[in-house]
Amino acid sequence: MKAEIIAVGTELLLGQIVNSNAAFLSQELAVLGINVYHHVVVGDNPERLDQVLTEAEKRSDLIILSGGLGPTKDDMTKQTIAAHLNRSLITDAATLKTIVEYHEKTKRPMPENNKLQAVVIEGSTVLKNPTGLAAGMFIKENGKMYVLLPGPPSELKPMFLQEARPLLLANSDKPELLVSRVLRFFGIGESKLVTILDDLIENQKNPTIAPYAGVHEVTLRLTANGGSEKACNELLDRLEATIQERVGTYFYGYGDETTLVEVVVDLLKEKKLKITAAESLTGGAFQSLLASVSGVSAIFDGGVVTYSNESKTKVLGVSSDTIKQYGVVSEACSIEMAEGVKQLYGTDIAISFTGVAGPETLENQPAGTVWIGLAVTGQKTIAKCFHFGRNRNGNREQAALSGLEMVRRILKNIPLDEE
Amino acid sequence: MKAEIIAVGTELLLGQIVNSNAAFLSQELAVLGINVYHHVVVGDNPERLDQVLTEAEKRSDLIILSGGLGPTKDDMTKQTIAAHLNRSLITDAATLKTIVEYHEKTKRPMPENNKLQAVVIEGSTVLKNPTGLAAGMFIKENGKMYVLLPGPPSELKPMFLQEARPLLLANSDKPELLVSRVLRFFGIGESKLVTILDDLIENQKNPTIAPYAGVHEVTLRLTANGGSEKACNELLDRLEATIQERVGTYFYGYGDETTLVEVVVDLLKEKKLKITAAESLTGGAFQSLLASVSGVSAIFDGGVVTYSNESKTKVLGVSSDTIKQYGVVSEACSIEMAEGVKQLYGTDIAISFTGVAGPETLENQPAGTVWIGLAVTGQKTIAKCFHFGRNRNGNREQAALSGLEMVRRILKNIPLDEE
Repeated sequence: MKAEIIAVGTELLLGQIVNSNAAFLSQELAVLGINVYHHVVVGDNPERLDQVLTEAEKRSDLIILSGGLGPTKDDMTKQTIAAHLNRSLITDAATLKTIVEYHEKTKRPMPENNKLQAVVIEGSTVLKNPTGLAAGMFIKENGKMYVLLPGPPSELKPMFLQEARPLLLANSDKPELLVSRVLRFFGIGESKLVTILDDLIENQKNPTIAPYAGVHEVTLRLTANGGSEKACNELLDRLEATIQERVGTYFYGYGDETTLVEVVVDLLKEKKLKITAAESLTGGAFQSLLASVSGVSAIFDGGVVTYSNESKTKVLGVSSDTIKQYGVVSEACSIEMAEGVKQLYGTDIAISFTGVAGPETLENQPAGTVWIGLAVTGQKTIAKCFHFGRNRNGNREQAALSGLEMVRRILKNIPLDEE
Repeated sequence: MKAEIIAVGTELLLGQIVNSNAAFLSQELAVLGINVYHHVVVGDNPERLDQVLTEAEKRSDLIILSGGLGPTKDDMTKQTIAAHLNRSLITDAATLKTIVEYHEKTKRPMPENNKLQAVVIEGSTVLKNPTGLAAGMFIKENGKMYVLLPGPPSELKPMFLQEARPLLLANSDKPELLVSRVLRFFGIGESKLVTILDDLIENQKNPTIAPYAGVHEVTLRLTANGGSEKACNELLDRLEATIQERVGTYFYGYGDETTLVEVVVDLLKEKKLKITAAESLTGGAFQSLLASVSGVSAIFDGGVVTYSNESKTKVLGVSSDTIKQYGVVSEACSIEMAEGVKQLYGTDIAISFTGVAGPETLENQPAGTVWIGLAVTGQKTIAKCFHFGRNRNGNREQAALSGLEMVRRILKNIPLDEE
C-alpha cells in the first residue's frame, strides 16, 4: 500500500511551525508495513488543497490529512474533501454531545462556532478525539482510503494510535498483528552497533530491525508480525536474546520514551542508595538531569558546582598541591572531587566531572577531554577519561550522560570498559 | 513569485528526521517577500523526484531542493535534475580543490567518491558550502529558478544565507533592499505583547512586524524595504523606538541567535560582578545555563544544589526554624538560601530557587509555585514569587530563565515588577 501525508496549514508554509506530524505518522506507518512515498504541505486554500488531492489520488492508495479541522474560518479541510468526493457534511450527534458536555463540565461558555467541530463528512467513520474537540474521519472510496486528523500533535497522536491505526490495520495488505519492541543503547555509536549486528540486519525478515541514531544514543526497533501477540513476542524474544548476547552491556532500557536518567534513578531507588555530584565543566547539568525525574528526592539531597579551581579547594577540599601537580583536568582531581562531595553530602555514591568543555583548550588538553570520578562506599574510588567532540554544550551533555552510564554499570555490576 | 520547497530523502519519509529545513527556508523566503505555496518530501528515487519536479514546474516559479548532494549511491538529486533539464554534469574545479585541500589539512584519507561532491550541473552558478563539502547550485531556465542545497541543516543554513539569498534577492520581483531586525522579549506573553502593539501590527506596511512565540519567550521580526540600507534602518529605528517605549522593559536583546543567558553573562562581565546560585527545584538548571556560555568562568566560580531540606540547613545555613515556620517554599527560605550561598562563594550577587517543580504539590502549594531570592552586595536581599504551569520540567526551565531576567533587571536598574 502506498501512502501520502498531506498537512494543511499556512503556518507551516510560513515556517512558524515544523511538520513533526509527518515524521510521527511516517514512523507509525512504517511499522504497519505501509510505504510512505510523499509528504506534502499546502496552505489553508481550498483550490490548492483540491489540486494536491487530485495529484495524490493518482499515485497513492492511502491519503492522510492533518490540520484544518478546527472551528475557525481558516479551517477548510473537511469542507474541501467533502466537495472533492461529492459528499455532504452532517453533524455527528455523539461528537456534538461531547463538545456540549465539555463546556458544561468546565463551566466555560461555548462559542457557537465550536459546534463546527462536530461536523463530519457523510458516510465516514468518525474518529474520536481523546484530547480535543474536533472529530476525525476515515473514508473509503474508489479503492482509496482517506484519514482526516486534527493538526495539533497532542490531538493527532492519540487519535491516530487509538482510532485510526486499528482501522488501517484492518484495511491493510498485512492483516496480521504487528508487535514492536524498542531497545535503547548508550555508549555505542550507530555504525558500531550496526556492524556488530550486520548479519541480523542484512537477513532480517520477521522480525524487522530498524536502527535509529538519536542525539547521544541509539535505538533498535524490532517489529514482528504473526497470528497472535504471543507468537509475535516469541519471535521478538528470540531475536532480542541474540542481540543482547552481542551488545547487551550497552542496553539500558525498553520503549520509545524511556531515558537513561529514569533508569538510573529507578536503580538507585530500588537499591536505596543516595547519590551526589561535584560538577565543574558540566556546571550542574548532571544534577539538573537527575532533578528532571519526578520523585528523585528519595535518592538525591543535592550537590555542588565547583567551576573555578579555588572553589574545588575551598568547597570540596581538593588539595591545591594536586591541582598544581596534575591540573584540574586529571584523574587525581576528579577522584578528590568525588570523595570531597561524598563526605559533604554523606551519600552512598558520589560522582565528579572535570574537564574541558571548549571551545578553548585548558591545561593544554583539547576540548572534549573529561575525567569522571566515581566514589562508592566500600569501594576504591575510580575515574575514567573520555574524549568527546569539539562542541561545548554537546561535550557537557555527553559528559552528564556518560556519568549516568558509569553509575548504571556500577549498580548492575557491568565492567566500565568494554574490550 | 511562487515558491515550492522539495526535500529529497527517504529518511524523512521514514520519519527518522523532521523536515526542519522547510521551516527555515519558508521563514527566510517570507522575509524576501516570496510566497511559499507547497512543501513536498520525496524519497531517494529518481523517477518519483522527476514526477514531483514536473508537478512543481506547473505551479511554481522558484523550486528549492534540499538533500541528495552527498557522495553516496543514495544521493541522486543533481543527477535527476540534470537529466530533467537535459544538461550535463561537470566537475567544478574550485570545489574539487577545496575538497582535496580539506583532506590534506585534516590529514584524513580521501575516499574516491568524495570527488562526486564537486560535480555540478552544467551552466549553473555554483554555491559554496561554508561548512561542508558538497557544492550547491543555482539554475535559471525557461523562466523558472532552481536552487539545490545540501540536506544537513548545518550546511543548508549558511549556504542559503551567504550564497543563495543574494541571488534570489537579485532575481526577485522586489529588487529593493530588505533589512530585518529581530527584537527579543522575556517575561511577557505573545498575546499580551500583540495586544499592546495591536495598532502597529494592524496598520503595518513598511516595516512589517512578525511576532513569533518561542518556548519561553517572544520575538518580533521587523522588516523594512527601501532603496538603501540607511533608508531601511531609519524606518526600523523609528518603529523600534515606538515599540521600546511601550514594552522596552521586557526587551533583552537583538538577533535570531541571542539568548537571555548570554546577555546576562555579558552584563556581569561588563560590570565585573561575580554570581553564584543555590538551587532546589531547578536542581542545577540555572548554573548549567550559565556554564553553557563560553568564557563564563570570568564571573562564575560555582554554587550549590540543595535539593533536600537538610542540605539547605547543612550546606547553606538556612535556619531549621525558618523551614519549620514558613516551609521551604517561602520568601524567608529563598532569602536565607541566597544569603547563605553568597557567603559561601564570596560573590557580588547570589540567586536562589526554591519551590514546587511538580507534578505533586509540596507544603500544600501547587506545582509551579517558585520563590526566587536575590542577594546583591550593598542592597537589601529580595525575593519574588512566581506561579508557572503544571509541567515539571517546564517549571524548572521557566524558573531558571526568570532568575536570569531578575538579574538582568537588577543590573539594568529596571523594576522587577511591571505595573
